[in-house]
Amino acid sequence: MKLLKTLAPAAALIALPSLGLAQDDGPVPGVNASTDSVFIFNSLLFLIGGFLVFWMAAGFAMLEAGLVRSKNVTMQLTKNISLFSLAAIFYYLIGYNLMYPLGTWMMDGIVSGVWGPGVLEAVGVTADAADDYGYASTGSDFFFQLMFCATTASIVSGTVAERIKLWPFLIFVIVLTAIIYPLQASWKWGGGFLDANGFLDFAGSTVVHSVGGWAALVGALILGPRIGKYKDGKVVPIPGSNLALATLGTFILWLGWFGFNGGSQLAMGTVGDVADVSRIFANTNTAAAGGAIAALILTQVLYKKPDLTMTLNGALAGLVSITAEPLTPSLGAATLIGAVGGVIVVFAVPFLDKLKIDDVVGAIPVHLFAGIWGTIAVVLTNPDASLFTQLYAIVVVGIFVVVTSAIVWYVLKITMGIRVGEEEEINGLDMAELGMEAYPEFSKG
Amino acid sequence: MKLLKTLAPAAALIALPSLGLAQDDGPVPGVNASTDSVFIFNSLLFLIGGFLVFWMAAGFAMLEAGLVRSKNVTMQLTKNISLFSLAAIFYYLIGYNLMYPLGTWMMDGIVSGVWGPGVLEAVGVTADAADDYGYASTGSDFFFQLMFCATTASIVSGTVAERIKLWPFLIFVIVLTAIIYPLQASWKWGGGFLDANGFLDFAGSTVVHSVGGWAALVGALILGPRIGKYKDGKVVPIPGSNLALATLGTFILWLGWFGFNGGSQLAMGTVGDVADVSRIFANTNTAAAGGAIAALILTQVLYKKPDLTMTLNGALAGLVSITAEPLTPSLGAATLIGAVGGVIVVFAVPFLDKLKIDDVVGAIPVHLFAGIWGTIAVVLTNPDASLFTQLYAIVVVGIFVVVTSAIVWYVLKITMGIRVGEEEEINGLDMAELGMEAYPEFSKG
Amino acid sequence: MKLLKTLAPAAALIALPSLGLAQDDGPVPGVNASTDSVFIFNSLLFLIGGFLVFWMAAGFAMLEAGLVRSKNVTMQLTKNISLFSLAAIFYYLIGYNLMYPLGTWMMDGIVSGVWGPGVLEAVGVTADAADDYGYASTGSDFFFQLMFCATTASIVSGTVAERIKLWPFLIFVIVLTAIIYPLQASWKWGGGFLDANGFLDFAGSTVVHSVGGWAALVGALILGPRIGKYKDGKVVPIPGSNLALATLGTFILWLGWFGFNGGSQLAMGTVGDVADVSRIFANTNTAAAGGAIAALILTQVLYKKPDLTMTLNGALAGLVSITAEPLTPSLGAATLIGAVGGVIVVFAVPFLDKLKIDDVVGAIPVHLFAGIWGTIAVVLTNPDASLFTQLYAIVVVGIFVVVTSAIVWYVLKITMGIRVGEEEEINGLDMAELGMEAYPEFSKG
Repeated sequence: MKLLKTLAPAAALIALPSLGLAQDDGPVPGVNASTDSVFIFNSLLFLIGGFLVFWMAAGFAMLEAGLVRSKNVTMQLTKNISLFSLAAIFYYLIGYNLMYPLGTWMMDGIVSGVWGPGVLEAVGVTADAADDYGYASTGSDFFFQLMFCATTASIVSGTVAERIKLWPFLIFVIVLTAIIYPLQASWKWGGGFLDANGFLDFAGSTVVHSVGGWAALVGALILGPRIGKYKDGKVVPIPGSNLALATLGTFILWLGWFGFNGGSQLAMGTVGDVADVSRIFANTNTAAAGGAIAALILTQVLYKKPDLTMTLNGALAGLVSITAEPLTPSLGAATLIGAVGGVIVVFAVPFLDKLKIDDVVGAIPVHLFAGIWGTIAVVLTNPDASLFTQLYAIVVVGIFVVVTSAIVWYVLKITMGIRVGEEEEINGLDMAELGMEAYPEFSKG
Repeated sequence: MKLLKTLAPAAALIALPSLGLAQDDGPVPGVNASTDSVFIFNSLLFLIGGFLVFWMAAGFAMLEAGLVRSKNVTMQLTKNISLFSLAAIFYYLIGYNLMYPLGTWMMDGIVSGVWGPGVLEAVGVTADAADDYGYASTGSDFFFQLMFCATTASIVSGTVAERIKLWPFLIFVIVLTAIIYPLQASWKWGGGFLDANGFLDFAGSTVVHSVGGWAALVGALILGPRIGKYKDGKVVPIPGSNLALATLGTFILWLGWFGFNGGSQLAMGTVGDVADVSRIFANTNTAAAGGAIAALILTQVLYKKPDLTMTLNGALAGLVSITAEPLTPSLGAATLIGAVGGVIVVFAVPFLDKLKIDDVVGAIPVHLFAGIWGTIAVVLTNPDASLFTQLYAIVVVGIFVVVTSAIVWYVLKITMGIRVGEEEEINGLDMAELGMEAYPEFSKG
Repeated sequence: MKLLKTLAPAAALIALPSLGLAQDDGPVPGVNASTDSVFIFNSLLFLIGGFLVFWMAAGFAMLEAGLVRSKNVTMQLTKNISLFSLAAIFYYLIGYNLMYPLGTWMMDGIVSGVWGPGVLEAVGVTADAADDYGYASTGSDFFFQLMFCATTASIVSGTVAERIKLWPFLIFVIVLTAIIYPLQASWKWGGGFLDANGFLDFAGSTVVHSVGGWAALVGALILGPRIGKYKDGKVVPIPGSNLALATLGTFILWLGWFGFNGGSQLAMGTVGDVADVSRIFANTNTAAAGGAIAALILTQVLYKKPDLTMTLNGALAGLVSITAEPLTPSLGAATLIGAVGGVIVVFAVPFLDKLKIDDVVGAIPVHLFAGIWGTIAVVLTNPDASLFTQLYAIVVVGIFVVVTSAIVWYVLKITMGIRVGEEEEINGLDMAELGMEAYPEFSKG
């Protein structure tokens, strides 16, 4: 997401580099096909990217449902479908306008809507409308942006699983997707001060993943660990109930990430843009592979047994690591950047346990730690990046999210309570809070 | 699907609104790139839309496999993969030609095929062929249309699960996909009398979803409820065996729906068309979110416990509700239209139970009731819609499908029987009819 | 994949048939939009095709996890995510350059890379770069090709499941994806002698599927059958633990196959190419349907009970059967070609059992036998095919893969052993080799 994501008016647009509208157009009067095609290709990238990132919501749901115990699966599924739905509604109602205030305001005159804030262009616009709307359809841009906001919320739900109450969690999601995520995202992708300072975060190692990770970390700290996780100074492993689901979820996330990173090129209407999108696809894939293999080998070396959940999280950490800069690395560099992400996960999971921070699915190592690593790694392959600026942005975003999340979590804790009762937790949230088991016929071992 | 779906000859095509071939072309002789690009973009929309709707077949399979008891899972999976396969074959052999008789007839001269009816253009057509084939590839159109027909059949299988015999069900599917669906679809999408009367059904709230719903309703009535479902005047809940699968199925359907509704724009080769497709993607997503959250909140209010299966069906009902008109609503209106669908589901499920109509997965509320609502809701945002015409079409299609389905179900009941024996039903269809368990190692609680 | 897959320099490119750059371009000076669009469309086909084929890796993982016993599920999942990751890394490091030596060498001057061999074009190439890079982005081509290599490895893992050690298997995968697959693929798709002889294999019935199948067959022979599979001259059925997963895997593979076959058109920037891609989508779908229904009916007739796993494998065999020539058949011919694949599976599974070749998931019938059938079936609809050449290529590739695989398997057997101990096998690989169960809470029946 290297460009201002607002669909700026054409005047501003022409000044932006690499959009390439002008150079492809040619001076032949009456032939507007070229401009049209660029607009269509760009919009299509947002649509394909958007549905792939939507699919990541299913990936998180499956990953988390597979990594919790069967007595909490229905709750985890309920949280995941609900958080995505709330993100969709509140990002539309509030978040999108917070994130791109200027863009929305500028479009006010040309946007139609029956109810609510308008973020879509009118039905059946003519080719001339490309002049008004910029280089892609606002609807496609909104659709794509929404999915990033929802991803941030999905990250949180895994960490705080198996003990948090449903409704306080969903209220946190509303604040996160309506306010916390969009505000800090505007600093970079809305053309704010981090963008002005030269901070580089192509698809959101910091803007999306570390934000979800910080919010999850604060949640885990305030909630406390699950009953029985840390006992007599020892860490008690609590295995997930369904590793097939967890693996499916990882594959879904891997697939969706092609849209996450590739779509963040924000354009594919020129030879240069589509070649860049292709680089990004290839680099994204190889970073995941690097992360998976690094974790596989490292767990073999450290524990004498390869660990599937570490390997899955290694792949995801590889993906997060390459997200801040999936374009400039070579395939080799991308593989190594991803591999470092996998290594981070293998060491970070026991490290968090040592601190008695109970992260049910490993989302903090994957999204926060590898997100920080990925944001720093930009300087390795992108000469435009400044290490100082990258660190500055990591810290600024971190402080903002930690403080705001802590306030929201604490207010929820004081007002309605965020943790289920001891008995409910031991019996499982499914029966206690929902009265519905995920696998009612499979007896528990 | 606002346009005649036949790939009409160019002469007719030029008269159609919003295809935009002419206006983009420009008067520059020798430059046919523009026309080519429009043709390619349109075909690509059908291909992407088509594979996304194909994916919905997997969604139905997972949703239904998750909502039946484990003793019937193998049967439900067998039905779902078989019904899709039969739909593919019989829609090709019979249905497509019934649905677009004029189009196929017109293409006869230019279509090649080694065996069977020809619905594809020849291999390696030249650019001039765009003149013969219209605005998109016939193969892409066929691929896309086929998936809609198959969806109709998928809807039926959930309702009649856990008690219907395999082969009679599959014979019903053949009649549905070869004759019932295509005939009524031709009334709207084949340019028939409902289309001429101004009936509006963009992607098929009535043409697809209510048709599947009516066929399912008649099947449920003729089959009767499952043994033990209604006992001593009480409704006995029969929980699904695997809610993780059911949730996965819902996410798959949600993803596929972007193709279902977005592809039904039928064109994306102009700025206006791709902007409309983008609106549709955004509206489809938010309607699902609205339906899910409405059901989540309503079940909390009514039953003090949020209900995951209702939330899943709420999302699906939201999707069905927006299907008749995903283009004209604003995001706010689409969210509310979807939310009403979610409310309908929450009230309709116990209502059907009161009538002792046993719908195993809730397909009748989702596809029939929300389909009717969605068809009516067109008048709220589309000024071209007439409430009378919408109601007229709902009734006409309903009567046609009820009568024809009833005839087929009765003939099957009389000739070969449609329901398994009592013992088979109690022991489960998997062992009785197939001799194969879906989860042979997981002992039953 | 009818064309040389190297992205050859423009000079060579112009000589290739059906690329159509020249004819669409028109002689209007200064209008390069058309060329750009063709380049973008072609690259986009590779990207969409590539992510769909990536998704097949998840399909294999789910199919195989569903068809092994629950005590081996974690191992099967570990193998599948690891094999894909290793394929990604080693195809990049070695395989791609072996497969397209000329192409890589030619691009050396214009490719940038921080580390490792360069296979991507530079970041932000200009429109003129299309002259250097040919008709599509090298990155998109690499991404697409990689997925085919990984598919070959996925095929092997199912056959040798439940008894092979993890690391020797992964070393085999490295040799397969770095050397065996690319070498023989270069004979056809790298413009080698099989291509020169007129061998036709559009998307790889032989080049991908039979190669995986041969490697699996040799592995099964050298490994021997699972303990308890053949007892006192009888075949003991060992049912899979989760048929819902297996069905999901089949649907995923079916979806991915649209990318596998459709993407192998290698171009969609002209009317003719996109119409061909559309034909391929429709034929691929109907072949799968034909295979599924053939297996469904045949198992009903032979065994009086339809068999879900046969139906799933029938669909997959239909897909493999149409892969060598998905373009020229009519829909009817494609359906029948697929149906023959389904018939082959139903007879081949017990045939292999008679030979005591223990193929856990049926990959040899599906990928090897149906792959041979599909390669031969090219002559039925493509007049350019020679039966002799097809058979010649099948035999040559077969001998090469059998010999090389046998060498690798034997070396592994002698040096580190390839089979787990008897006790480990009986207790399950998950606890013995990984110490982690896939479904720890579901007690075994």
